[in-house]
Amino acid sequence: MDDHNDTNRLEAFSDGVFAIAITLLILEIGVPHVSADGSLWRAMRELWPSYLSYTISFVVIGIMWMNHHNMFRDIVRTDHYLLVLNLLLLMCISFLPFPTAVLSEYMRAGGHRTAAVMFYGATFTVIAIAWNALWLYASHGHRLLSHDVSVARVRIRTRRNLLGPIMYGITIPLALISLWISIVIYAGLAVLYLLPQDEAWRTEHSHEPADR
Amino acid sequence: MDDHNDTNRLEAFSDGVFAIAITLLILEIGVPHVSADGSLWRAMRELWPSYLSYTISFVVIGIMWMNHHNMFRDIVRTDHYLLVLNLLLLMCISFLPFPTAVLSEYMRAGGHRTAAVMFYGATFTVIAIAWNALWLYASHGHRLLSHDVSVARVRIRTRRNLLGPIMYGITIPLALISLWISIVIYAGLAVLYLLPQDEAWRTEHSHEPADR
Amino acid sequence: MDDHNDTNRLEAFSDGVFAIAITLLILEIGVPHVSADGSLWRAMRELWPSYLSYTISFVVIGIMWMNHHNMFRDIVRTDHYLLVLNLLLLMCISFLPFPTAVLSEYMRAGGHRTAAVMFYGATFTVIAIAWNALWLYASHGHRLLSHDVSVARVRIRTRRNLLGPIMYGITIPLALISLWISIVIYAGLAVLYLLPQDEAWRTEHSHEPADR
Amino acid sequence: MDDHNDTNRLEAFSDGVFAIAITLLILEIGVPHVSADGSLWRAMRELWPSYLSYTISFVVIGIMWMNHHNMFRDIVRTDHYLLVLNLLLLMCISFLPFPTAVLSEYMRAGGHRTAAVMFYGATFTVIAIAWNALWLYASHGHRLLSHDVSVARVRIRTRRNLLGPIMYGITIPLALISLWISIVIYAGLAVLYLLPQDEAWRTEHSHEPADR
Repeated sequence: MDDHNDTNRLEAFSDGVFAIAITLLILEIGVPHVSADGSLWRAMRELWPSYLSYTISFVVIGIMWMNHHNMFRDIVRTDHYLLVLNLLLLMCISFLPFPTAVLSEYMRAGGHRTAAVMFYGATFTVIAIAWNALWLYASHGHRLLSHDVSVARVRIRTRRNLLGPIMYGITIPLALISLWISIVIYAGLAVLYLLPQDEAWRTEHSHEPADR
Repeated sequence: MDDHNDTNRLEAFSDGVFAIAITLLILEIGVPHVSADGSLWRAMRELWPSYLSYTISFVVIGIMWMNHHNMFRDIVRTDHYLLVLNLLLLMCISFLPFPTAVLSEYMRAGGHRTAAVMFYGATFTVIAIAWNALWLYASHGHRLLSHDVSVARVRIRTRRNLLGPIMYGITIPLALISLWISIVIYAGLAVLYLLPQDEAWRTEHSHEPADR
Repeated sequence: MDDHNDTNRLEAFSDGVFAIAITLLILEIGVPHVSADGSLWRAMRELWPSYLSYTISFVVIGIMWMNHHNMFRDIVRTDHYLLVLNLLLLMCISFLPFPTAVLSEYMRAGGHRTAAVMFYGATFTVIAIAWNALWLYASHGHRLLSHDVSVARVRIRTRRNLLGPIMYGITIPLALISLWISIVIYAGLAVLYLLPQDEAWRTEHSHEPADR
Repeated sequence: MDDHNDTNRLEAFSDGVFAIAITLLILEIGVPHVSADGSLWRAMRELWPSYLSYTISFVVIGIMWMNHHNMFRDIVRTDHYLLVLNLLLLMCISFLPFPTAVLSEYMRAGGHRTAAVMFYGATFTVIAIAWNALWLYASHGHRLLSHDVSVARVRIRTRRNLLGPIMYGITIPLALISLWISIVIYAGLAVLYLLPQDEAWRTEHSHEPADR
């Protein structure tokens, strides 16, 4: 524990929760039961909704981990409310294995598919809102940011973060039309976030370590 | 491992247990089974006791993590008994997913509700007692505290800690009257601990990190 | 990662596995199913074998964590075989939730009790053997030890470690006589290891951190 | 968080995922249900496929952890794509408890055995491919490597890594002939990787820590 940088233990704890939540996802995929004359191959193939939702949830949590790490390069102090807001964010992220399992179970069930996708999308939306709350609190008036962080950079980050609740929120009503539109948006957002950020940002941002 | 501060590895291990226990809570919420002509929405809504107990348990463990962190700013040495007392505390905290699942299952079952809430409250009470044992051992005669910690501060902390077993203990008999009184006390205690501590305390306490 | 002390990452990884294995134990206690006119209190009481085996396993893993930490104060270098031996040790420790669950399930079932206890005791014995293998490899000819560690101290540690496989091994045939003899030995060993070590050892051993 | 070595947090997060995935494996072994006049001993013995697949998967993940640690002695910088490739690698590794459970369940079921082994082998192959992608990206033109790493050493590592997808890939069609050929190859590869690397490599490689 380092008194000189309070964010260390917060980040370590958050990393732990991210790592556990991401690894627990696999527990939601149960071994299929196949009779002696059935086909295990077919049973495994029919689990594709589980593989798909596992992949989306894993990538989304992974991206959130990377962005959390990124965000805490700028946030260099903590206070009581930041700890609380971070805890609420982690609570929403830790919840994700449940809607993931619901989606896996009901993705192919015609009548229940819409509800399952909307619940999944709603969880992402709530996570994105908690994320914005955390960032807006920390960045308001540069409250907990490093002096090195430019106002322009804060604005870029704020705008980028706002994309989350909007895009995830849109998937909720869209699920009424088609499951696949929502899935495409989740995948698209994931790819978008997986792409490197624009060069201008990166240049300002970079902390190239000296070679060891 | 740093020989100069024995509390480091204790804190890291404790953080790990806190992070895992808090993330495992979601595993206790099972995917509801809905027939083809049933309503998934309704089934999801009927899981509200699970959402409620997940939230309470998550927030309580989160608060305990923050307070543990806080307490180990003052405790700067360890000895054998402290390790043992901390282990007992972690054992009680790791137990929490079980009464949480019991409460989720039986909160709506008229006949079993009282037993489920009392069991949940009793677990919190035991955790709070273990917490006090740890603190009283470490702070007795300033045994393992930093010299910077004033006697007044020790007294504030001791009193604050004693609130836990008393308040949680009270919820046990109160559950005989109504489930909701206990729930309100859990929520109230959580909010109370989530509020920042009083200014006098904070000023003495603060270790404002220099900007990086 | 610190190239100057290779044991850091080994210890961090081991701590992670200890913390996860210890916290997963609770997942093996399932919520009891009680009919509307049954008694939840009685159902909860009948889970006492689960509480008992949870407690023993938790304390034993916790003690192993403390001793692992202790042992790696003396072991200051790693090599390939130490990593492998440590991995095998962790494999045995991670296995523990399974015999714990078996014991919980069958402790009250007259006909199966003996098998469940013997399996539990055998797991402990194998863990203790893996532990000795690790220590004997590291300490042989002071291979991976710090120069500060006296020969006398190595001998104390070696003797102390040998107690494990012998005592745990003895519980296997004793289970044929009575479940409770074995349980008493597990509890007794746990209490023994929870007691502080003798003063002479502690004096030589102590790394009292300077106050911060 | 240390801005001077970006790989620290990546390694810590990866270590967390490795530690959790390896420890979760035990959860896939369920307690056998035995009637009062059945034999628990026999039921435990009949779980040997679970013990076998637990052991193989545990050792393979453990080896991957050691090799990941090793590889990141040479990789001293990160960039966005490395984080993404590492995330994909972790996604494949976290998936492993599922094919492990499938293999445990169907290893003895004549008709399904082949499918279960092929699925298991395919997972290992995909992991090995992700591993190679990560290494090839990081080492291409010494992109993210330390200047200390010789070209010869990069070549050794590249060749060694390529062995993975080839050997694991071969087990997939071989499973059509016999389950045991594949199992022997998995075990053989594990033993091979558990053996220390050749002396020449080790000498160049060693970072012998000074005694503390």
